[in-house]
Amino acid sequence: MKPPLKIAVAGLGTVGAGTLLLLQRQAEPLAERAGRRLLVAAVSARDRRRDRGVELSAARWYEDAVALASDPEIEVVVELIGGADGIALALVEAALERGKSVVTANKALIARHGTRLAARAEEKGVALCFEASVAGGIPVIKTLREGLAGNRLKRLYGILNGTSNYILTAMRESGREFAEVLAEAQKLGYAESDPSFDIDGVDAAHKLSILASVGFGRPVDADGVYSEGIRHVSRLDIEFAEELGYRIKLLGIARWTEEGLEQRVHPCMVPRSSPIAAVEGVENAVVAEGDFVGRVVLQGRGAGAFPTASAVAADLVDIAAGRRTPAFGVPSALLRALPLAPMETHQGAYYVRLMVVDQPGVIADVAAAFRDEQVSMASMIQHGRAPGEAVPVVLTTHETREAAMRRALVRIAALDTILEEPRMIRIEDF
Amino acid sequence: MKPPLKIAVAGLGTVGAGTLLLLQRQAEPLAERAGRRLLVAAVSARDRRRDRGVELSAARWYEDAVALASDPEIEVVVELIGGADGIALALVEAALERGKSVVTANKALIARHGTRLAARAEEKGVALCFEASVAGGIPVIKTLREGLAGNRLKRLYGILNGTSNYILTAMRESGREFAEVLAEAQKLGYAESDPSFDIDGVDAAHKLSILASVGFGRPVDADGVYSEGIRHVSRLDIEFAEELGYRIKLLGIARWTEEGLEQRVHPCMVPRSSPIAAVEGVENAVVAEGDFVGRVVLQGRGAGAFPTASAVAADLVDIAAGRRTPAFGVPSALLRALPLAPMETHQGAYYVRLMVVDQPGVIADVAAAFRDEQVSMASMIQHGRAPGEAVPVVLTTHETREAAMRRALVRIAALDTILEEPRMIRIEDF
Repeated sequence: MKPPLKIAVAGLGTVGAGTLLLLQRQAEPLAERAGRRLLVAAVSARDRRRDRGVELSAARWYEDAVALASDPEIEVVVELIGGADGIALALVEAALERGKSVVTANKALIARHGTRLAARAEEKGVALCFEASVAGGIPVIKTLREGLAGNRLKRLYGILNGTSNYILTAMRESGREFAEVLAEAQKLGYAESDPSFDIDGVDAAHKLSILASVGFGRPVDADGVYSEGIRHVSRLDIEFAEELGYRIKLLGIARWTEEGLEQRVHPCMVPRSSPIAAVEGVENAVVAEGDFVGRVVLQGRGAGAFPTASAVAADLVDIAAGRRTPAFGVPSALLRALPLAPMETHQGAYYVRLMVVDQPGVIADVAAAFRDEQVSMASMIQHGRAPGEAVPVVLTTHETREAAMRRALVRIAALDTILEEPRMIRIEDF
Repeated sequence: MKPPLKIAVAGLGTVGAGTLLLLQRQAEPLAERAGRRLLVAAVSARDRRRDRGVELSAARWYEDAVALASDPEIEVVVELIGGADGIALALVEAALERGKSVVTANKALIARHGTRLAARAEEKGVALCFEASVAGGIPVIKTLREGLAGNRLKRLYGILNGTSNYILTAMRESGREFAEVLAEAQKLGYAESDPSFDIDGVDAAHKLSILASVGFGRPVDADGVYSEGIRHVSRLDIEFAEELGYRIKLLGIARWTEEGLEQRVHPCMVPRSSPIAAVEGVENAVVAEGDFVGRVVLQGRGAGAFPTASAVAADLVDIAAGRRTPAFGVPSALLRALPLAPMETHQGAYYVRLMVVDQPGVIADVAAAFRDEQVSMASMIQHGRAPGEAVPVVLTTHETREAAMRRALVRIAALDTILEEPRMIRIEDF
């Protein structure tokens, strides 16, 4: 057997501690699969005294994470600190510079600096691995990069944020409003005290940008992701979705179109019969549509210390066994800056919910606004009657262009009988 | 760029032609991912003149597939002939012997000879790859072997035979009986004229034995798979399953128990809310439950020329890129002959359907038979009344031992009021 692979782990929060526990508990099977032992020779974290439930006496301790990169014995640095910049970036850059491979769970870092870091890793002949950065322990990066290597992807989409999916699921199951469910999720620890990163689509956009890069061979471009979160999804929308045969999910979608590559994160109505509709609670799922393989669905727990540790371990075994794959599937020089399709050119069907005064002529005015923008209506629902009062009206459209839809909504919002900002949710044809 | 990888393809049926088409159509992206071109330098098939829709003039043609192994230029032989023995085996053995890597879609071959062939490949320092042998283009082997390398599996199960799943789905959707739906499936080309391989669980057992080996590190043992097919599933069972909140699926299951490793293929009742219940028609799915990753579900098309070609291409890219993984995840010397749990020791809940004479005391006799074998009843359904006539009665049990269940069924079958062989379907707690 080859000598052990000497590893440094930076960041001993829940994911770091879970990773150490995994490496300790599965030492034998990992060694059998990798052909050598995986040895944690150094660690770094803020508080040395905290009990993390794992034996650390054999590892050298560094106060300064970046100093791990200078430990001559270390071959691989595992970065579990987090954050797009700061110490995490400094450590990863220093490690690559000194010819050490890097494994990271840091989606913000890869979404922001992935292409540049991958190029540097190639120049240095080392690995940059980030399976743990997207969808927890589900091997989505490996699947796109290796398992589906024989395909050109047509579309790639997924439920990439467990917190948002938990909130949408709980809203549907309990019939409660967003704010109430969010407060409960925060109490249960499923949502952060500042939930914006999750519920406004930032986290999902980071992950989608990474998947899109691996799936479509484009440099990672988190700024090129159109992004909306779930704050404006109401109980009413969820009820109407059920009635129309849909379920509402926050999806990240990358799709190749005539206008370029779409990269978007927003709430979607998906047919209740589609596999993605059945992915509930904190689960994640990624769906890849390839020209040869057809549709492949991967589902599992998208977060948590243990699933994330599972992904980190898989990357370490690949490195230990000498299996090397370019970070984004092809050498970074071959990543192509394909044009990004602006959201205005998006084509799809739409759901629109209006709060209107229940009086004759309202629907005629709305229909006229759609007609004037060449948007074709597919269905209309208004339950009951309440003359003179505010009632919800729901409309769906046939496939139309986003720009036309937005113009129609501006016209509609200006009508006297429309009492609130119109709400629009895109319908996907899965 | 490195020189091209020179490939020979043996067997140009639909999968072979699909593979050639893929290699031709995706030549550029494959070369970018593999770091070198994949070149089909030789082929072998029975009929040279048949038009297969792909350009073959640059490839040397061999009448005798086994002769491909002696072509000095060839580095990888792709075996798409099929069959556990005969030419396929002779070719694979000859290729390994001469130090050529092998990619195969042949589940029967791997299920029968996989361990021995893997050992030979290791001795010769070449690869033996069979992603295409299980679940078509879904990268299940890669996921178990690499993506989940940090886990000990608790259980592994899947819908591994598309024909059986198609028949069960069609029976449920149309309310028709097995024989009628089978006949239709044969007419549509979804089932063979001799359907036994698919509907009697043979194909699923081959695939399960391969998955179990990769997942649990045991030498492949197709004979050690307990196997029942779907011939005895009736429309009535499907209706009762719906009523009880289940769906009937033909599953392959490998599970680690105190008695050893269970390997079994049989119809199962699975909760309608489980992801596997939603896998319909010709789709396949594999679910792996790992101690760190939790439950991971992979779903997609499990057969067909293009999905299978996708899996073959993924193996070829790994070989071309120099990524080497032991065929079953660990070197074959480390595969352990873990004890197999005999089916008699299986513990689970059961569904039993009886045809009884509707008269007082029947249920009491049945209940007494269960009691005498210490089987605890969970529910009983008899719809309507038809005094003196034959009516179906359905019972479910709490968790019990298969041996006790079988003894109880022998007692019940012997009762005068029981008109047909009792039907039993195992209930799984997914």
